[in-house]
Amino acid sequence: MKPAVTYELLHECKQTGARRGIIHTPHGDIQTPVFMPVGTQATVKSLTPEELKEEVKAEIILSNTYHLYLRPGNKLVKKAGGLHKFMKWDRPILTDSGGFQVFSLGDLRTIEEEGVYFKSHLDGSKHFFSPESVMEIENDLGADIIMAFDECCPYPSTYEYTKKSMERTTRWAARCKAAQKDAQNQALFGIIQGGFYKDLRKQSAKDLIDLELPGYAIGGISVGEPKEEFLDILKYTTPLMPKDKPRYLMGVGTPDYLIEAAIAGIDMCDCVLPTRIARNGTAMTWNGKVVVRNNTYSEDFTPLDEECDCYTCKNYTKAYIRHLIKANEILGVRLLSIHNLRFLTKLMERVKIEIEQDNLLNFKNEFYNKYGY
Amino acid sequence: MKPAVTYELLHECKQTGARRGIIHTPHGDIQTPVFMPVGTQATVKSLTPEELKEEVKAEIILSNTYHLYLRPGNKLVKKAGGLHKFMKWDRPILTDSGGFQVFSLGDLRTIEEEGVYFKSHLDGSKHFFSPESVMEIENDLGADIIMAFDECCPYPSTYEYTKKSMERTTRWAARCKAAQKDAQNQALFGIIQGGFYKDLRKQSAKDLIDLELPGYAIGGISVGEPKEEFLDILKYTTPLMPKDKPRYLMGVGTPDYLIEAAIAGIDMCDCVLPTRIARNGTAMTWNGKVVVRNNTYSEDFTPLDEECDCYTCKNYTKAYIRHLIKANEILGVRLLSIHNLRFLTKLMERVKIEIEQDNLLNFKNEFYNKYGY
Repeated sequence: MKPAVTYELLHECKQTGARRGIIHTPHGDIQTPVFMPVGTQATVKSLTPEELKEEVKAEIILSNTYHLYLRPGNKLVKKAGGLHKFMKWDRPILTDSGGFQVFSLGDLRTIEEEGVYFKSHLDGSKHFFSPESVMEIENDLGADIIMAFDECCPYPSTYEYTKKSMERTTRWAARCKAAQKDAQNQALFGIIQGGFYKDLRKQSAKDLIDLELPGYAIGGISVGEPKEEFLDILKYTTPLMPKDKPRYLMGVGTPDYLIEAAIAGIDMCDCVLPTRIARNGTAMTWNGKVVVRNNTYSEDFTPLDEECDCYTCKNYTKAYIRHLIKANEILGVRLLSIHNLRFLTKLMERVKIEIEQDNLLNFKNEFYNKYGY
Repeated sequence: MKPAVTYELLHECKQTGARRGIIHTPHGDIQTPVFMPVGTQATVKSLTPEELKEEVKAEIILSNTYHLYLRPGNKLVKKAGGLHKFMKWDRPILTDSGGFQVFSLGDLRTIEEEGVYFKSHLDGSKHFFSPESVMEIENDLGADIIMAFDECCPYPSTYEYTKKSMERTTRWAARCKAAQKDAQNQALFGIIQGGFYKDLRKQSAKDLIDLELPGYAIGGISVGEPKEEFLDILKYTTPLMPKDKPRYLMGVGTPDYLIEAAIAGIDMCDCVLPTRIARNGTAMTWNGKVVVRNNTYSEDFTPLDEECDCYTCKNYTKAYIRHLIKANEILGVRLLSIHNLRFLTKLMERVKIEIEQDNLLNFKNEFYNKYGY
């Protein structure tokens, strides 16, 4: 059986490990490397699907299993005809497994071999996630790419803890594969864990690859560690992943990390950062971060970013956006969200061109200088 | 000199006092009777100008002098090139005078003959509004229609208090006219006060008409009184207003009040209601109010309003909108705001047709039955 999602390699950068490709999914193709906006609760915060397509030019979005399971409930989404229909998004969707969210609940959860017992952050009600139940939830949601239920270690964690956790993640991945309901329409991706221990990363990659899943992700980095450690594990782990399948780095969304991920050979990234900092009144621009909320911009009648082609930059001034944010007006969040997401998709458009031209390393240096890293 | 704003009468309804007309302004024509969405802080809450034009089909919006004076400040708006340019709205704008807002401050303000001393609701800082200062502020903002600085009595008020207040409002209107800076591009409208005393309403109308202003409004009703009292004063006062000038009823936005206003011969209304109830999860529909937040709609996969042509109703289900509102997602507020505003502009489109066909009274009865009044 042909998997629901396949990877087509177009070009490998001669300067770096980066690759230009296409991910084929049941809801259309994705040009990679790609940045995926996050729509946690079946909406990319503040935006419509049309804005995501026409202004942000998003090719795929991510949604969160944990949140949708709790509210409105996966059975309701299923009744609505699945997540695509429920939220009116007809391009690809990836759902995470809820693993990261339930482990982030701290005292509110207990991990057992069979799964995780946890209390809802909304109302304290009791719940249980297992590889099998998560496969059912993700099937109800109906995304194109579904993530295996994994355990994400906190940073830092001991070798012993990380090893046990990684091994359980592998066993859970096998249970996910066995429990998966519709491999013809949904591609199950495994998540390589192993914290900051290379031998564990190697073991995790090997064991998961043996499961012959249609795609693989790196989890458990970009979780608070110094950038050098992030880069070290990223550069070590990515080449261990299959060349003929999509490679996804979870939870990465700063411009420098996105470029580094592409350089390492990653195809997909996601992060809530662009919409989260929008709500705080901050823009990412080709000249670095602009905290438009600051008084400096009160009489600045120029756009956020002169080089940007988004709706916000074509129509509004920093002074107006600042006013909206200071006055707690929703339109301010909308305008900054459109811009920040478009900034990242535009960055990835540029990264794709630089890969095709075997020039990604030069671009990285240029960008770091300009953006101020 | 030709006033900045003129009224053209197209047709008078043979069933009611209603009139179909056009208000000509420096930023284009307005087909009347019209409902004006409110953009208090230089934004109609949650929407873009394009949405207001294309989805809501708004022909004019209102903005609030008090709020803009405090934040971002009228001088900043002036530097931006005026309110139209600041917020990217190229159709007509009406600014109120701040009268209603400062009187609503209660203990935070003191009324004198020269003007009103008040403290900002934002930071407690001290300010002073007079007819002259308000004319300067409204000139800085640059709306097409600017309202005279008036005093709005609370409901109920004694005859003595209402009389004194009404007489001061007339003196302030004369001072506004004398202080007005740019009558060629901005039309100053007077506000008829007099509370719920007909002789005072008559006196107010007469004295203000003597000032020969280009338009008139009714203030001080729809302030909490029973509907019969509202209708009584509305029906008494509207015929006192000049036939050859626009007639504006301030602060009215429920469907029944809008229809009653049109029947009485009113041309313009405004209200924050449609966007305010949107934020609470409530929709106005052709079958009455729908509190979409309610559990009843959790699995309702039909649109808010089958008869509506708005973006929201063409694309989304009640179940999805309910989910967004329950999850505090901005998109929920956006979708309900678009719908509620479109409901009212659509209602006024219908009212215009019924006036042209001399059928407004029949339509009112039909609508009251259907909507449940």
